Amino acid sequence: MKKITAGWLLAAAVLGLGGCAAPSAKNLDEGPLSIAQQGSFFVGGRNVNSNNLSLLPAYAPAGTIAVEQMYVHYQVPVDAVRRPLVFIHGCCLTGKTWESTPDGRMGWDELFVRRGFPTYVIDQASRGRSAADPSAIIQVKAGKAGPETLPQIFGAAQEGAWAIFRFGPKYPEVFPGMQFPLEAQAEFWKQMVPDWLNALPTPNPTIPALSELAQKLKGAVLVSHSQSGIYPFQTAALDTRGMAGIVAIEPGACPAATDDLKPYLGMPILVLWGDFVDQAPRWAPRLKACREFVAATNRAGGKAEMVVLADVGLPGASHMLMQDKHSLKIGAWLAGWLDKNISR
Amino acid sequence: MKKITAGWLLAAAVLGLGGCAAPSAKNLDEGPLSIAQQGSFFVGGRNVNSNNLSLLPAYAPAGTIAVEQMYVHYQVPVDAVRRPLVFIHGCCLTGKTWESTPDGRMGWDELFVRRGFPTYVIDQASRGRSAADPSAIIQVKAGKAGPETLPQIFGAAQEGAWAIFRFGPKYPEVFPGMQFPLEAQAEFWKQMVPDWLNALPTPNPTIPALSELAQKLKGAVLVSHSQSGIYPFQTAALDTRGMAGIVAIEPGACPAATDDLKPYLGMPILVLWGDFVDQAPRWAPRLKACREFVAATNRAGGKAEMVVLADVGLPGASHMLMQDKHSLKIGAWLAGWLDKNISR
Repeated sequence: MKKITAGWLLAAAVLGLGGCAAPSAKNLDEGPLSIAQQGSFFVGGRNVNSNNLSLLPAYAPAGTIAVEQMYVHYQVPVDAVRRPLVFIHGCCLTGKTWESTPDGRMGWDELFVRRGFPTYVIDQASRGRSAADPSAIIQVKAGKAGPETLPQIFGAAQEGAWAIFRFGPKYPEVFPGMQFPLEAQAEFWKQMVPDWLNALPTPNPTIPALSELAQKLKGAVLVSHSQSGIYPFQTAALDTRGMAGIVAIEPGACPAATDDLKPYLGMPILVLWGDFVDQAPRWAPRLKACREFVAATNRAGGKAEMVVLADVGLPGASHMLMQDKHSLKIGAWLAGWLDKNISR
Repeated sequence: MKKITAGWLLAAAVLGLGGCAAPSAKNLDEGPLSIAQQGSFFVGGRNVNSNNLSLLPAYAPAGTIAVEQMYVHYQVPVDAVRRPLVFIHGCCLTGKTWESTPDGRMGWDELFVRRGFPTYVIDQASRGRSAADPSAIIQVKAGKAGPETLPQIFGAAQEGAWAIFRFGPKYPEVFPGMQFPLEAQAEFWKQMVPDWLNALPTPNPTIPALSELAQKLKGAVLVSHSQSGIYPFQTAALDTRGMAGIVAIEPGACPAATDDLKPYLGMPILVLWGDFVDQAPRWAPRLKACREFVAATNRAGGKAEMVVLADVGLPGASHMLMQDKHSLKIGAWLAGWLDKNISR
């Protein structure tokens, strides 16, 4: 692996770094995986001074820590010929979302690498391998501030998340034909982590970090999901440089149709939905609002598309469609969409 | 990628899953990386009921969450002919420790894959992608419990960590010849996360999870560092099944020479130290105690070894020696030690 320098990410993506042959088109999802480059790094972040880092004698109470950085794990395939994809997870989850499915099948991280896309999987700021700031908690434990100053973190209960993930109308009911591998749900629930979203400044530090990453990659497609659905749009509103497209999977929100749509007109946009949305009071209005955004964007001269997977022959998709039993088929369909709509 | 079933991990490790040729011995650290299997999963964990998951209207306050699971990311090279290595990070860090170095060079995760070792990189329980339980924090914020019940978490300040990582005797002094890439220290500090160690039950849930992982791998070498230095020994004391060896890198502690040494007699053990230890009051006594443990283990019929890297021609190593400027040389030396001492 080479040092990370200004040009190598794009160079690796565009040229491919020869050697062993790519898997044949017939067996994209089988056989060895040939990686030109892999590794991880951070984007964004800043140093803060804190007087509330520790109540333990072994560790100093005061000093500097880095916060708000975004962890990025990347893989560039040997036969990289397509635009880099940045995978952004949703609520209460981490980059694990895009790795192996709960029932142990290939995740989208690997699937897209096998199809020639460099992939960049992030942990949102203050989650997973992206550090949260513990100061507010330690300060309250020390009696130096009131309990109301504790960060507004939350965990999503499995019973409540059931309907949000649209496994069924309510726990433990299941939509007929729903394709999430519920037999492996115990492994899935282990993916969930406490969510610090509401304890973060505005804009969420993940947004400028995504912009920095896209610019570093000189043309990336931001692929968001659920809570992070709006992030690529917010990133484009901040700065469109480096953005080659947006794929918002079951976004918690699209921009409003009445918003300034200019930032979204210069790039292909896909809003992608699974099944059973009309039976989910939480999701049906969001799909409708996204449809209005897509129509308004196209009227304004943009190139946006909304696809419900059941309409393209892939019924039964849950909210966690990148982990559904037919996740490889859905991923292959998305790779085809990217091929058709995003310039190489 | 195949489904994770009982036998495949070992099968993949022992047989290698043919295909594209492995890099030649001359250029182990260059050229494409050929991966037979990669992905991630969790080990351990249990469901708990909580009434303190959320104070937000959008998320239910009560329900079930999974806690104490251990995240594992793995890669099996095409030419896997050696025992799997389980990489266990130290205090205030995550599995990121073993990935790309702060100055963007190859991490040990990749280095050992290139040398034919399947690698399993974990996040300790309640850290990184292994979820912590937020209930105690939310309960205090809700006014249902006193601040003293908050978890004993801590962050390590950069200034205090400086001497612990042995970049120098004290911040910002540098030991002459010290090899950590300080020019990239800003990137390094972003690796650090709040540490929940003291908020966890005894034994730390990471220990039984490591045992479960080793047994699943049917013969793994546990490679620990710093705070986790003692974990492989604690794992062996719990159950030696599945353990093919121990490499403790700059352990916070070795077992006492007066402990029951039986669990440690059936496997090769290496305790590895960097440089400047005699100039570090925090570390010098720990090295001495480990030397006594190694001697006692050998007297009892075991096969333990302690190596100070300066004594094998690799001076200048910091506490973060897997990220030092000569980290690839140190890794190559360790691969040689494993080859000589651990049966394939």
